[in-house]
Amino acid sequence: MRTSGGPQSPAAVTPDGVLEAGGVTYRVDRARAEDVPAIVDLLRDDVLGAQREDHDLAAYERAFEAIDRDPSHYLACARDSQGQVVGVMQLTLLPGLSRGGALRLQIEGVRVAATTRGSGLGGAMFDWAHAYGRSRGARFVQLTTDRSRADAHRFYERLGYRATHEGYKLPLD
Amino acid sequence: MRTSGGPQSPAAVTPDGVLEAGGVTYRVDRARAEDVPAIVDLLRDDVLGAQREDHDLAAYERAFEAIDRDPSHYLACARDSQGQVVGVMQLTLLPGLSRGGALRLQIEGVRVAATTRGSGLGGAMFDWAHAYGRSRGARFVQLTTDRSRADAHRFYERLGYRATHEGYKLPLD
Repeated sequence: MRTSGGPQSPAAVTPDGVLEAGGVTYRVDRARAEDVPAIVDLLRDDVLGAQREDHDLAAYERAFEAIDRDPSHYLACARDSQGQVVGVMQLTLLPGLSRGGALRLQIEGVRVAATTRGSGLGGAMFDWAHAYGRSRGARFVQLTTDRSRADAHRFYERLGYRATHEGYKLPLD
Repeated sequence: MRTSGGPQSPAAVTPDGVLEAGGVTYRVDRARAEDVPAIVDLLRDDVLGAQREDHDLAAYERAFEAIDRDPSHYLACARDSQGQVVGVMQLTLLPGLSRGGALRLQIEGVRVAATTRGSGLGGAMFDWAHAYGRSRGARFVQLTTDRSRADAHRFYERLGYRATHEGYKLPLD
């Protein structure tokens, strides 16, 4: 596993899931059922999430169980020195036939706590996620982000991502 | 299950995986290992695929096994009356915490044979895919498509999709 990640990453990644960002140490590990309320708080504390995360906790708990029981998914939490969840991202390993049968790492639902923004924690989480993907044989990472999230676009481009695709959605309700 | 799909769909969807498009009947079912060479031919017969699908068949066969063993994935083939594979799409059911713990249907690797283009088969396959997603409890569909595929963009927009997101990719090699 590498000890540093994206081209302009301010953070170090160590193999045991310890991140360092802005002189602060964070631990990254798999979310547990008791983390769901803290994760939902992070999802709600967001410009878009504030409107669309108005749901009963039970709905999130059912989704957590579906994620947790499938080893294709890794719902990763970054925790501060008190064990508080200050970052979350869902990693999924997706096999596919196209691009020579390449395994993909897909990243969804990325959030970091407002208190840590600008600290480099987001970049450190992505470096860690990329190392996770490489260790599982993924050949590339894919993610989509809302067109309105200009700060996120700059963040991903600094990490080396290219916006080569259009991301389409259609409600099924 | 509904008997018709997208707002401007030219095709009918029936519950047993039979599609009708342009007066022709197609069967849709789960891909089998012996379909892999025909699917790879479809992937290669494409402006972008011609460059990036120059790989050994064994790599595709390994990817097929990974897709086939995981019930989250449904690699769907559309077959003509001779049983020839004339369309393919990979459907994946993705649980997630965001948007109230909504289950997503993700569609990847869509191709239809050049001989059937313009027949409505593509629209019929999507209607079928949406019905599949609804039957499994998915609340929305997501997909990405290369920015250069202008025809695909018009196709998805006719089906009601909205390009709300940027699709980012990063190689891990």
